[in-house]
Amino acid sequence: MRILYLVPGSTGPGFEESIIERRRIILQGMATPGTLIEAKASGTGPLSIESMYDEYAVIPGAIEAIINAEKEGIDGVIMGCAGDPGVDGAREVVSIPIVGPAQASFALASMLGRKFSIVTPVDQTIGTSIDLAVKYGFRESLASVRSAGISVLDINKDPDIAAKLSLDAARKAKNEDGADCIVLGCMSLAFAGFDKVASKELGIPVINPAIASLKMLETLIEMKISHSKKAYPTPASML
Amino acid sequence: MRILYLVPGSTGPGFEESIIERRRIILQGMATPGTLIEAKASGTGPLSIESMYDEYAVIPGAIEAIINAEKEGIDGVIMGCAGDPGVDGAREVVSIPIVGPAQASFALASMLGRKFSIVTPVDQTIGTSIDLAVKYGFRESLASVRSAGISVLDINKDPDIAAKLSLDAARKAKNEDGADCIVLGCMSLAFAGFDKVASKELGIPVINPAIASLKMLETLIEMKISHSKKAYPTPASML
Amino acid sequence: MRILYLVPGSTGPGFEESIIERRRIILQGMATPGTLIEAKASGTGPLSIESMYDEYAVIPGAIEAIINAEKEGIDGVIMGCAGDPGVDGAREVVSIPIVGPAQASFALASMLGRKFSIVTPVDQTIGTSIDLAVKYGFRESLASVRSAGISVLDINKDPDIAAKLSLDAARKAKNEDGADCIVLGCMSLAFAGFDKVASKELGIPVINPAIASLKMLETLIEMKISHSKKAYPTPASML
Amino acid sequence: MRILYLVPGSTGPGFEESIIERRRIILQGMATPGTLIEAKASGTGPLSIESMYDEYAVIPGAIEAIINAEKEGIDGVIMGCAGDPGVDGAREVVSIPIVGPAQASFALASMLGRKFSIVTPVDQTIGTSIDLAVKYGFRESLASVRSAGISVLDINKDPDIAAKLSLDAARKAKNEDGADCIVLGCMSLAFAGFDKVASKELGIPVINPAIASLKMLETLIEMKISHSKKAYPTPASML
Amino acid sequence: MRILYLVPGSTGPGFEESIIERRRIILQGMATPGTLIEAKASGTGPLSIESMYDEYAVIPGAIEAIINAEKEGIDGVIMGCAGDPGVDGAREVVSIPIVGPAQASFALASMLGRKFSIVTPVDQTIGTSIDLAVKYGFRESLASVRSAGISVLDINKDPDIAAKLSLDAARKAKNEDGADCIVLGCMSLAFAGFDKVASKELGIPVINPAIASLKMLETLIEMKISHSKKAYPTPASML
Amino acid sequence: MRILYLVPGSTGPGFEESIIERRRIILQGMATPGTLIEAKASGTGPLSIESMYDEYAVIPGAIEAIINAEKEGIDGVIMGCAGDPGVDGAREVVSIPIVGPAQASFALASMLGRKFSIVTPVDQTIGTSIDLAVKYGFRESLASVRSAGISVLDINKDPDIAAKLSLDAARKAKNEDGADCIVLGCMSLAFAGFDKVASKELGIPVINPAIASLKMLETLIEMKISHSKKAYPTPASML
Repeated sequence: MRILYLVPGSTGPGFEESIIERRRIILQGMATPGTLIEAKASGTGPLSIESMYDEYAVIPGAIEAIINAEKEGIDGVIMGCAGDPGVDGAREVVSIPIVGPAQASFALASMLGRKFSIVTPVDQTIGTSIDLAVKYGFRESLASVRSAGISVLDINKDPDIAAKLSLDAARKAKNEDGADCIVLGCMSLAFAGFDKVASKELGIPVINPAIASLKMLETLIEMKISHSKKAYPTPASML
Repeated sequence: MRILYLVPGSTGPGFEESIIERRRIILQGMATPGTLIEAKASGTGPLSIESMYDEYAVIPGAIEAIINAEKEGIDGVIMGCAGDPGVDGAREVVSIPIVGPAQASFALASMLGRKFSIVTPVDQTIGTSIDLAVKYGFRESLASVRSAGISVLDINKDPDIAAKLSLDAARKAKNEDGADCIVLGCMSLAFAGFDKVASKELGIPVINPAIASLKMLETLIEMKISHSKKAYPTPASML
Repeated sequence: MRILYLVPGSTGPGFEESIIERRRIILQGMATPGTLIEAKASGTGPLSIESMYDEYAVIPGAIEAIINAEKEGIDGVIMGCAGDPGVDGAREVVSIPIVGPAQASFALASMLGRKFSIVTPVDQTIGTSIDLAVKYGFRESLASVRSAGISVLDINKDPDIAAKLSLDAARKAKNEDGADCIVLGCMSLAFAGFDKVASKELGIPVINPAIASLKMLETLIEMKISHSKKAYPTPASML
Repeated sequence: MRILYLVPGSTGPGFEESIIERRRIILQGMATPGTLIEAKASGTGPLSIESMYDEYAVIPGAIEAIINAEKEGIDGVIMGCAGDPGVDGAREVVSIPIVGPAQASFALASMLGRKFSIVTPVDQTIGTSIDLAVKYGFRESLASVRSAGISVLDINKDPDIAAKLSLDAARKAKNEDGADCIVLGCMSLAFAGFDKVASKELGIPVINPAIASLKMLETLIEMKISHSKKAYPTPASML
Repeated sequence: MRILYLVPGSTGPGFEESIIERRRIILQGMATPGTLIEAKASGTGPLSIESMYDEYAVIPGAIEAIINAEKEGIDGVIMGCAGDPGVDGAREVVSIPIVGPAQASFALASMLGRKFSIVTPVDQTIGTSIDLAVKYGFRESLASVRSAGISVLDINKDPDIAAKLSLDAARKAKNEDGADCIVLGCMSLAFAGFDKVASKELGIPVINPAIASLKMLETLIEMKISHSKKAYPTPASML
Repeated sequence: MRILYLVPGSTGPGFEESIIERRRIILQGMATPGTLIEAKASGTGPLSIESMYDEYAVIPGAIEAIINAEKEGIDGVIMGCAGDPGVDGAREVVSIPIVGPAQASFALASMLGRKFSIVTPVDQTIGTSIDLAVKYGFRESLASVRSAGISVLDINKDPDIAAKLSLDAARKAKNEDGADCIVLGCMSLAFAGFDKVASKELGIPVINPAIASLKMLETLIEMKISHSKKAYPTPASML
């Protein structure tokens, strides 16, 4: 099984190709035997995604990359941003399963407790995180969205500070908002790799969206199941 | 007051510049004295929008057009597609009010009855219309989404058939789904101009999203009020 | 276009005719050229409305005034109390649009952000404000209702204190309850005229229900659209 | 314990005093030993209530009657109309429990199954019945509202036809809308006395709002419990 | 009318037979003339119920006891635990009404205000109390669940401390969570008998689930109404 | 990794040990290399589960079996009934992940479309299936529950008829209820093995709860993640 971890956006100073290669290695390490992880950036748009403006800038290029991936025999794609940019649009134009890290994490969280909170990097992404949970049908399972207060590029520069700030936000979500499960709402937070430590510290599950996406995608591919074409119909222009 | 009616997408055979000019004239005719309507296409992406894939294709160009419009002194923009493509992203990067026809129509419908239904052109846009109502907080006010079963370009070619098919769908929404108000979920349906006749026939309000957007935008501009920057914060990359 | 601003209730010491005349002038100043504002009290019931008991006391007289207004050629009515007393009953017996300030403000707020809070004068009107938002389908968009802690008649006596207290309540709604938009839940707060200053101070929109009602009503009249008679059917006794 | 069954509205040809006396006897027959039922009309407003306009016309007089009843030592009041007109306003101004037949029936229904439907006399009261269920927090428990298609005064004239039409509506609610319990949404339907037969025919509970109100009110009085004054605060004008 | 107060579980040191006899006497004192209260433990499972694990342990024995009670001519059963263990299963296999104290209390609370909070003994039962309110359709009426922080057996040992801790929790529910009514979420809290004092202290109704169950059950029996067999169908194995 | 597929209930004529062994082989065939599937019945309660009464009868024995499984080194358990009987109680008393087939299937469905329907064997399990979706937070994602009209034991006797009846029910769910994904709500339907054929026929995903549980459980074990102990706290009696 060939899985593409697609970073929607560009690489450059602050988000180098080496970061993607490091992520590929981590995912390969978590993959089931027989799964081959490929990873790349779509190559258009900004270096990091911290607004809807940023999301829209990366989506067309990312969808084109997914169309090509399907042609090249990729079995499924992880959209490598926890805003799940363009996942619905991509599903309209391909048959292979496309997993959004947020959606995969919410699904996983739904099996672990009653209410989850999302820890998102900056205040600017609180509202859009709520929109995402609502869009996916998890309004009643969402306890809160808390911001860690650190930009995406800074997370990659200083993962220890990111871990500390995320833990603080998660603790408030647990103690003040009623969360019994935490979803990390950012791929850079995911790959900072502190979820197991944070989970131990808090005493509740902390979901790593990178691993959640990988496992959910492997599940879909093994089950030979993909998104509903009634929900994501092929655009008329492509029929 | 200068208002831009921006068609997100391209013009070409089937959706000519003349269609946009006709729409400008209609809007100018409905405008309050003192309002000047300008109209243009953003110029990138497909001729019509009937999927999320289509929406994502037009958004980056449309947002750039809006940024420019603000610089040029435009007081407010109607995003000329009833899928409200990229309205949230646009609001992040400008201060002037941006009105989405769906959102304006839902707001208007909320003042006229208990539950509204949306008549959308094709089956492919039923699901995304539901997503939009849910995103805007109208889940409980949405009676149903019904498709007229006619493509956007065909609406422009044969508005009489479009009117008949829309009326059929609206009647089912009223009689079977509990709708007491109808929202036309497409700008080509809006400019086909049958909403008054349909309203009379059905005995319930039929909202024309083009006029609704214009009037709601004039209201916002006259009230000197715009979207909340807490809800649509400026992207960090632009600060 | 002739619009009636109808104060449901009586005038007398503490709520003099001069207050209504002042409001008429303010509304006329905000009206579109061609709109003529008329204003009067219905003349039955208490001087101010701060409970459901008060609302019920003014409604029958207010509805009779609206029936008469329609006969006299009025094109639409603003029910001049932010509890929207009797708006549904009035709609049953007339064809012209009747706008409730709360409903108009909620509709406007729905276009500006994700969640709004209502600032209501006294604790006694918190519960009924929630009822109103729920009745109109805005349960999920309501962040909170906060009381300013000042009676309606005192607002008219000391608008500066009313402004300060309202700003305090609105700030808590923004910072603690997640509101990204504020609705002033009282016509006396509306005409105290501090909404623009408050909006600037808070950095989020503050909706003046008086102006919102006026503009929404102008919109309905210009669009030649009124409430759904399926939602507000004519009473059998009047057929 | 003295209970007042208060008919909000007038008596006259079509709704005679004798109807009220007959109702008093029925309620007395269902009452717990020690309960004394008194019954009267408030004496202002129309003969029957089939719209919000009608409701508003009867409320002020009904509330005054309730204030007087409390002074005269009545222990609790059944508001004798299944639209629960003015129940919230009445609770603000008295301490004794006021039971609305709709609210009592919904509470009872909540203990008998998952979803109930309301059978209301005419189409005109469908929307207001929905409003009532939503106001009381039963949105998710409401399967549907179905109209029997017979006016209130005709129910009193021909209870057998009323029974047949109500059964038809209830059957559709059970078979098509998922109701597992039926609430009769009108006091004239209640006193037509066919609920037991209908229940047997349908195989699901049919709640008689007259009896439900009586029993719920007896319960409140025996428990020495009344409505929350935090929810229904005394109007400032009465403090 | 014969009513069985059934304690699901065992008796023994810490929860002696004498506790059940004391409860029987209290209920008999609150019963309507003509009602005979019987009381017993089902005799299987733990002494107290503070988890779903505990609930599941007592349910099969409790249902068998209910089947026998019906055979022996009992007219209705109070399931004597505020987690309502197995009430749905019991309803499937008998025709007589089975009242769960939580469901009866929620129904009663729905008539007294807008939102209620539950005071539950320990943190471990917060989540399951939420589940119960959601299952019964009261998600939107539930303000919060607060724990008193005292085990069930300790409540019976020291009812004064239980009263004080419950009052503290209820006060927070009123002041911080928006509750205008309190439901005691435990039968040992109910029989500690402090609900009237607490209600006076807080100024809002405090519902005693033991009395609520008794009165609701008497109501059902007097109305000759029981649960819907469409909602709780007889298991196929029993047909 | 050792996974236990635990059938809650007994074996005997109509549900023989050989059926469990067949299921073990199917699951082993779908398992990831390195996963060892064990399978057994808990041994207490009825042969099939078609009511809450049946569920409660099997739960205590099933939970004991799970406690023992954890002691014997099992890494995770599939509760082998799509009513997820006792899953919450089991989670309170063990640390290893316990997967309910319904919950796993709902989580999977949430990633594939907007709304799913459940196909349940008999009418008697429609209501409890709704309860389950609501309990897990999927109220807004549930399109409907449809019954196939065939008992569990008959499914095992004649899987071809079961397949045909399920397909009919699923088609109605798709065409009439708005489902874009189907969840088979019964393990015997799951192991009848027609999900792939049904999915092809309908053009939308049909989720096999047996495979969904297995894959979700493997995912949890590989991610070293389990249910939240804040959501499912250890009973005080076990501390």
